[in-house]
Amino acid sequence: MQKKDMLYEGKAKKLYTTEDKQKMIMEFKDDATAFDGEKKASLQKKGKLNTEISMIFFELLEAENISTHYLEKLSDNEMLVEKMDIFPLEVVVRNIVAGSLAERTGLAEGTELEEEVIEFFYKSDELGDPLLNSEHIKLLELADKEELAEIRSKAREINNVLQQFLAEAGIDLVDFKLEFGRTDQEEIKLADEITPDTCRLWDVSTGKKLDKDRFRQEMGGVMAGYEEILKRIKKEK
Amino acid sequence: MQKKDMLYEGKAKKLYTTEDKQKMIMEFKDDATAFDGEKKASLQKKGKLNTEISMIFFELLEAENISTHYLEKLSDNEMLVEKMDIFPLEVVVRNIVAGSLAERTGLAEGTELEEEVIEFFYKSDELGDPLLNSEHIKLLELADKEELAEIRSKAREINNVLQQFLAEAGIDLVDFKLEFGRTDQEEIKLADEITPDTCRLWDVSTGKKLDKDRFRQEMGGVMAGYEEILKRIKKEK
Ligand SMILES: Nc1ncnc2c1ncn2[C@@H]1O[C@H](COP(=O)(O)OP(=O)(O)OP(=O)(O)O)[C@@H](O)[C@H]1O
Ligand SMILES: Nc1ncnc2c1ncn2[C@@H]1O[C@H](COP(=O)(O)OP(=O)(O)OP(=O)(O)O)[C@@H](O)[C@H]1O
Ligand SMILES: [Mg+2]
Ligand SMILES: [Mg+2]
Repeated sequence: MQKKDMLYEGKAKKLYTTEDKQKMIMEFKDDATAFDGEKKASLQKKGKLNTEISMIFFELLEAENISTHYLEKLSDNEMLVEKMDIFPLEVVVRNIVAGSLAERTGLAEGTELEEEVIEFFYKSDELGDPLLNSEHIKLLELADKEELAEIRSKAREINNVLQQFLAEAGIDLVDFKLEFGRTDQEEIKLADEITPDTCRLWDVSTGKKLDKDRFRQEMGGVMAGYEEILKRIKKEK
Repeated sequence: MQKKDMLYEGKAKKLYTTEDKQKMIMEFKDDATAFDGEKKASLQKKGKLNTEISMIFFELLEAENISTHYLEKLSDNEMLVEKMDIFPLEVVVRNIVAGSLAERTGLAEGTELEEEVIEFFYKSDELGDPLLNSEHIKLLELADKEELAEIRSKAREINNVLQQFLAEAGIDLVDFKLEFGRTDQEEIKLADEITPDTCRLWDVSTGKKLDKDRFRQEMGGVMAGYEEILKRIKKEK
């Protein structure tokens, strides 16, 4: 499968059309950004690491009968995916308090949640990705009631699969961001990526952060964290 | 009924205990604040106007069988209310897009909503009164599922009554903030105030703002707006 036109260049990935209208090539870049693009860097090997990590997670989910846009890995930093009509929602699933949930609720970072918490943010750089409640989503017609219920339940299932798999790799799945889309056949599937860019992942025994927070918080060893995650999940696979 | 101890002094009101443990005296102050207390002023007659406006709205709701904490008016700026255990939630009901809903959604101020939108904000000055979704409310145990459903449905009822009444007075009820509480008998009732401090009220034909936004936006004529509202609703009563 050959790349045709670049359809979209985001902060972390590029999307290309192919001869097949229903298939796209997703290229993972080495670029890292944080704080609405204010902080930027190029991190060698990030594209390669994120491609491989995403592939492992997507294959794991497919094996558990959770459908995703993933089709196959094409190269070190490219995968073939199904073209989707993306819901403009960032679906965040949380198992442990961190980041904006700590700020919003006053709960201490690290507090374990009895039940996972799901949040929807409006995918809009212009508006700063604000939190939405169900009535906002309805008002903006971002997803209808049935679609939203399906997205919620899929997000929970994905959380269960990933949380258990990562626990076996000695990693706490603190929280993560998902994007869902609709296929031409109106089927809802998981899209985008599952990588340390979009998940908070802490070492179970030491609490050491292994994800993009190392970049956000200037902790150094960012790619070492990603390498560590890949090493551990490859072993569990 | 005599004031005993001042239990609480807020930005706009003071609350006093009385001989009767279940009753409190609510005193409306002339103080106005905006932007988290950054902007402050004393507006002559505000306390008196808000007391009378609140009284009219509470009596209207009671007449429609919606229970409130309101018992009786005691003086120009005091009313007797039932002591409640307040849910730490600001319940916002919106009929027309304005303020933070415009910022959150990108919808233009003035857009009429087909169906009212209800939002819950965490009553926490420290955290900046952040928006919460249902899962946050559950996590923080601010209200249980049944209570939240009851609050939602009461908020809708209140909106219907007020919206219709105000329409007859030539006023658009753009949005407003409610607080609910539990009595000793676990009954949920409307508490706090309904005033131009806590509602957005626009003249139906000219769109002129008659509420606290005149203060927030340095438009002048703040008390003239409140007087206009009182005059019109007194006539409709
Ligand atoms: N299967 C798919 N079909 C179509 N678009 C997709 C698919 N999977 C992901 N996308 C979209 O591709 C883009 C990925 O690029 P990237 O993650 O770099 O964007 P970004 O900088 O995060 O910006 P944003 O996600 O806000 O658009 C996202 O807009 C995402 O919604
Ligand atoms: N019936 C009631 N019983 C007990 N408390 C009440 C009752 N009605 C209102 N209150 C509380 O009294 C206070 C009113 O004071 P005011 O409106 O000035 O507070 P504020 O400055 O807005 O601060 P905040 O509302 O954030 O506490 C509020 O805290 C409100 O929740
Ligand atoms: Mg992205
Ligand atoms: Mg108040």
